[in-house]
Amino acid sequence: MEAYLDNSATTVVADSVREIMIKTMTEDFGNPSSLHMKGVEAEKYLRTARDEIAGILKVQPKEIIFTSGGTESNNLAIIGTATANARAGKHIITTAIEHASVLNTMHHMEELGFSVTYLPVDKHGKITAKQVFDALTEDTILVSVMHVNNEVGAVEPVEEIGEMLHKERPEILFHVDGIQSFGKYQIRPKKYHIDLFSVSGHKIHGPKGSGFLYVSDRVKIKPILFGGGQQRGLRSGTDNVPGIAGIGEAAALMYRNFDENTAHMYELKDKLIDGLGKISGTVVHSERGRDSAPHIVNVSFIGVRSEVMLHTLEAKGIYVSSGSACSSNHPHISETLSGMGLSRDEIDSAIRFSLCEKTTGEEIDYALEIIGENIETLRKFTRRK
Amino acid sequence: MEAYLDNSATTVVADSVREIMIKTMTEDFGNPSSLHMKGVEAEKYLRTARDEIAGILKVQPKEIIFTSGGTESNNLAIIGTATANARAGKHIITTAIEHASVLNTMHHMEELGFSVTYLPVDKHGKITAKQVFDALTEDTILVSVMHVNNEVGAVEPVEEIGEMLHKERPEILFHVDGIQSFGKYQIRPKKYHIDLFSVSGHKIHGPKGSGFLYVSDRVKIKPILFGGGQQRGLRSGTDNVPGIAGIGEAAALMYRNFDENTAHMYELKDKLIDGLGKISGTVVHSERGRDSAPHIVNVSFIGVRSEVMLHTLEAKGIYVSSGSACSSNHPHISETLSGMGLSRDEIDSAIRFSLCEKTTGEEIDYALEIIGENIETLRKFTRRK
Repeated sequence: MEAYLDNSATTVVADSVREIMIKTMTEDFGNPSSLHMKGVEAEKYLRTARDEIAGILKVQPKEIIFTSGGTESNNLAIIGTATANARAGKHIITTAIEHASVLNTMHHMEELGFSVTYLPVDKHGKITAKQVFDALTEDTILVSVMHVNNEVGAVEPVEEIGEMLHKERPEILFHVDGIQSFGKYQIRPKKYHIDLFSVSGHKIHGPKGSGFLYVSDRVKIKPILFGGGQQRGLRSGTDNVPGIAGIGEAAALMYRNFDENTAHMYELKDKLIDGLGKISGTVVHSERGRDSAPHIVNVSFIGVRSEVMLHTLEAKGIYVSSGSACSSNHPHISETLSGMGLSRDEIDSAIRFSLCEKTTGEEIDYALEIIGENIETLRKFTRRK
Repeated sequence: MEAYLDNSATTVVADSVREIMIKTMTEDFGNPSSLHMKGVEAEKYLRTARDEIAGILKVQPKEIIFTSGGTESNNLAIIGTATANARAGKHIITTAIEHASVLNTMHHMEELGFSVTYLPVDKHGKITAKQVFDALTEDTILVSVMHVNNEVGAVEPVEEIGEMLHKERPEILFHVDGIQSFGKYQIRPKKYHIDLFSVSGHKIHGPKGSGFLYVSDRVKIKPILFGGGQQRGLRSGTDNVPGIAGIGEAAALMYRNFDENTAHMYELKDKLIDGLGKISGTVVHSERGRDSAPHIVNVSFIGVRSEVMLHTLEAKGIYVSSGSACSSNHPHISETLSGMGLSRDEIDSAIRFSLCEKTTGEEIDYALEIIGENIETLRKFTRRK
C-alpha cells in the first residue's frame, strides 16, 4: 500500500489539469501576444483562468497577476509594494513563522534599508490583531501575514487584522501569503481588506511553475521582472499558457466540491490526531477541528529523530515530511516550531503529515498502524546509538 | 493548408517533451526538496536536464540555473550581476536593438543609478567588437549583447566581443541573450569567454514558463528572487520539475540532428528570400546564407501595412508576425528596424517569417504563392483608403 501524506510539499497534478496543459502545449500552443488567430486562441485560456480565479475570490479579473509560483508571488507582493511606497515609509510588519519566501525577502528588504518587525507567535503558532496594532509605527507601509502556516497548519487571524488595519490605518497595505490556504478556505480579499494574496499552483493539484498574486487595484506596486510589458506591465515574459490554464482549472476543481472536500479532510485530520494520541510519547502540535487547517498535522515522536521516522515510513510507502520540505535540502531549525516554544527534543522528532481531498481513511489507518508497529524499535535503536 | 511561420514567437511542444512533462506531473510528481523517495525521483529529472544542457554547452552542470523563462534569465543576468558588482563600477554596455527583457531591465538599472551605453547597429542590425571596445570606461562592469536578433535574425559578433573583453578587460562580465540562437548554433561559453547566457524553453519546442541561465562559476551574482534557497541560493522556489525536464529534453532534441536541421532551415530561408525577391516592391532586411540566423526573415511589403498582410495571410492559414510579438500587444516602433535605418514605410510594412526545423518547402511555397496572389490587391486597397 502507498500513502502520500506530503501534500503540503507538493500534490499530484489533477487529470483535467493535465489535459488542458496538453491541449495548450500541442494544439492551442500560440503566444498570446501574437496578433493572429493562434495568439487569440491562446489568449482565451488566460482570460478563462483569470475569470475563474477572480470569480472564486470575488475580485476583478484584472486584479489577478500570474507568476511562476508562490515564491515569485510573495517576492512581487513584498518587493513590489515596498519599493513603490518607500516614500511613505520604510517599516514592514510580519511574523516570525513565515515561509522562507517571505522571511528571506524581508531580510533582503532590510539590506535595502527597510526595517522589519517579526511578531512572535503563541504555542499554537498564532499571532493576534492586537500584536499587529501594537507594532504599527508612523512609518509602517506593509503588513504581511500568512493565512495558514505550512508546518503546523496554524490559522492566523487575517480577517481581524484586515479589519483592524482598515479601521485604524487604511493606507497600510495588507499582504496575505495564502499558499497553504487557497483551496481550503473561502477567501474574500475585498471583504477582509486584504490587498495582496499569494497562491501557488502545485499545492492544489495544479502545475509546478505556476502561481498568482491578487493585487487590489488600489495598490501601488512596481514590477520585479522587466520586459515586454505583459499583464499590465506587472509581470513581463511570454505568458505561460499551459501553467496558467492549469492553475485556473486546478482552482476551479478545488472549489467545485469545496464543503464536501474540506469536511472530508477535517474528519481525516481528527482521525489522525486521535490515532497519534494513542501512541505513547507523541506530542501533537496541530489543533483538532476547525481551529487549524484541515490538511496539516505536525507531531513529535519523542525519542525518534525526524529523518529516521521519515525513512522508516518511506520504506513502507508512506511519504511525509520533516521540516517544511520547501526549503531546499538544507537542514535547519524550524522557525515555526522554535517560535512556538517547542523543546529541542520535540523539534528534532517532528514530522508533518499533510492531506488532500483525495486522501482516504485507509491511508490514515495504514500510517498509524506502521508507526504503532515500529515506534518502540525505533526508540530503542535511537537510544543505543 | 496551414503554415505556422511564427516560430520565433513560440513553438509547438515536441512529443517527447510533452511525454516527460506528463510523467513528471502524474507519476514522478514529487518535490525535489523532499527527503523521501518521491523527492529523490524528482531530483533525478533535474540532474538529467542539467547534465544534458551542460553537455551541449560544454560547461559544468552546476553552472546551469533554471528560471521561469527568457525574461527571468535576462533579468537575473543583468540585475543579479550589476547589483553584486556595483562597488567595482556602475557602467553597462548593451546594444540599441536588444529584446525588451534586456532593454527595459537596462532602463530599470538606470533608475537605480547605473549608466548604460546603447550601441547603434549598422544597416544589417549588427555591432562590432570595436564599438564595444570604444565604449569601455573605467567603470564598466557588464557587457550585454544578444546573439541573434529576434526581429531580423542579425547575428552579433559575440565571439569577437568575448575575445576582445578577455584580452583587454577580463574583469568585465559578458552576458549574451541567446534566446533566439540556442538550438541554432553550437555555443561554447567557455571558449567564447561568455560569462552568462540566457535561454528560453518555448522557442525550442520546450515548455512555456521554462528557461535557464548559464552562470560561469567565476561570476559574482545575487539572486533576484528570495526564498527556500533552491539552486545554490540563486533561484528560490519549488523547482518546476516538468518545465525543467521539458527544457532539458527540448535542448537534447535540438542538438541531436543539429547539422541536418540547420542546413534544412538555411535552405528554406534562402528559398523564402529568393521567392520574396521576385515579388515586386519587397525589401528583405535579413541576409541570405550563413551571415544571418537560419530561421528568421524580415521583409517589408511596401504599400501594405503589416497588420493587413498579417491578417490576409492568417485567413489562408499562414501565421507570421508583425513586430517581434514578444512585446505584449502594444504597437510600437521597432527599435531594431528603426535602429537599422529603415524608412517609416519599410517599418510600417514589415513582416517577420520565422521557421523551425520542421518547416517544409511546401509551406514556404504556399506562403509565397498566397502573397503573390494578393499583394497587388492589398496595395490597391491601401491606396484607396
